[in-house]
Amino acid sequence: MQLIKSINSVKKQIRKAKKTGKSIGLVPTMGYFHEGHLSLIRKAVKECDVVVISIFVNPAQFGPGEDYLRYPRELSRDLHLAEEESVNIVFAPSAKSMYPNGYQAYVNVEKMSKVLCGISRPSHFRGVVSVVAKLFNIIEPDIAYFGGKDAQQAIIVDRMVKDLNMNVKLKVLPIIREKDGLAMSSRNTYLNKMDRKNAANLYKSLKGAKRLINSGTRDTNRIIHTMRKMIKSVPHAQIDYISVVDAKGLKPVKRLKGKILIALAVYFGKTRLIDNIIVRL
Amino acid sequence: MQLIKSINSVKKQIRKAKKTGKSIGLVPTMGYFHEGHLSLIRKAVKECDVVVISIFVNPAQFGPGEDYLRYPRELSRDLHLAEEESVNIVFAPSAKSMYPNGYQAYVNVEKMSKVLCGISRPSHFRGVVSVVAKLFNIIEPDIAYFGGKDAQQAIIVDRMVKDLNMNVKLKVLPIIREKDGLAMSSRNTYLNKMDRKNAANLYKSLKGAKRLINSGTRDTNRIIHTMRKMIKSVPHAQIDYISVVDAKGLKPVKRLKGKILIALAVYFGKTRLIDNIIVRL
Repeated sequence: MQLIKSINSVKKQIRKAKKTGKSIGLVPTMGYFHEGHLSLIRKAVKECDVVVISIFVNPAQFGPGEDYLRYPRELSRDLHLAEEESVNIVFAPSAKSMYPNGYQAYVNVEKMSKVLCGISRPSHFRGVVSVVAKLFNIIEPDIAYFGGKDAQQAIIVDRMVKDLNMNVKLKVLPIIREKDGLAMSSRNTYLNKMDRKNAANLYKSLKGAKRLINSGTRDTNRIIHTMRKMIKSVPHAQIDYISVVDAKGLKPVKRLKGKILIALAVYFGKTRLIDNIIVRL
Repeated sequence: MQLIKSINSVKKQIRKAKKTGKSIGLVPTMGYFHEGHLSLIRKAVKECDVVVISIFVNPAQFGPGEDYLRYPRELSRDLHLAEEESVNIVFAPSAKSMYPNGYQAYVNVEKMSKVLCGISRPSHFRGVVSVVAKLFNIIEPDIAYFGGKDAQQAIIVDRMVKDLNMNVKLKVLPIIREKDGLAMSSRNTYLNKMDRKNAANLYKSLKGAKRLINSGTRDTNRIIHTMRKMIKSVPHAQIDYISVVDAKGLKPVKRLKGKILIALAVYFGKTRLIDNIIVRL
């Protein structure tokens, strides 16, 4: 396995592999791997000749006052895990090389970036899709792998790829959860013991929503009301949003029909957690 | 020569050519070819194995009330000229296929799009770089050719390519002028006889600026003042801007030093003309 930090070096390596007809898989990450990341990596290794994992805590997707500086980083552990999974290249550029002086080109998926997480994080998805666009240009992957936890991110990246005619196939893999149902996230490490325990409530509320739907409920307000009650039943949980939207355009729906995304963001203290389920009706 | 209107078809053709190791040259145009376009096409044919000319009057780069609908179009003449120059593929997609329902991903070179032409055309460069990004993804050219008349466009596209790590080399070729010095433009066709004659004054003002510089003037205000007087000496000429900026970051300079762009936009009636010179000091 190679650890490459330079954009030009990784471009050269990739070009060499492409010339011999090898397929390239990319797993873009911010590092601090958990089983969610590893599920993406394993899938990429199974499907592609050359697998590149990018590890880059992307400053452009953090807002002022957010956790860019304290976001957990542990490169040596990540490298060890990547090596164990037979990854070919770990690409870990510096922020300075990704955003040199005078940097000012950004991609924006304009409407869909303004809803759900985009309300409390107004420049987040601009940062996400811009760095993803950069990584796609640097690595030129045949397939890129994303986790399902940030459903909005996956939907927005998909929209960017389609709108800008990018030559990459996206695969979005299922959320990997802890035993009590909490969606795995590098940010779970921020939680104290009690909040960590209570955070399992988020997935319980999503399962509760699913039960309601399975028993025939189609009314969005009733679902949100039930979820809200369940989440608010533990201390410290501050709901950022609970939204029921169509899973393609992220527009709110009043009555459930088609492919639906039920997504939430909840703060425990300063820690913001997200989770979601997708239901088909 | 092939005329291809479908995005998928042209992608397939290009992929086939790339597999055999052929280099791809792209000349992105809005059609209605003049000698400026032809100079780009000839250069591309000289330098690349496969030359693609895109002809697309891009709605995203026209503001409300601008000349999108009346912009001159003459596809059959353009095809004839392209064929004579041994172009391989003319790619002429429909607006609907480039911007389907729900389209919302745009690239923005944020700061440099707000100055010079960006002041009176606030969404223009967002439209330009977005369609250029799309064309780069569709055609995957090794080299793309741009005219020097829209200097700001070329500088902004260059910034996008660098910032987003795109895999294309840009070549910006010199402005081609009419005998009286007027920069060739599809929009010159809008001018009535008198305005057409008076429009030659724009280049005269730029040459006047160069004379001042050659005789030792370094003061921006004096240069702009002299140009303004010369342009205003003919009827109907309404100055949009005359700017003296550094040719990399497009920031205004008070005293000339380094690589300098002197750019102007002037209305004759509804017709907006641009021109520029670059000087090195």
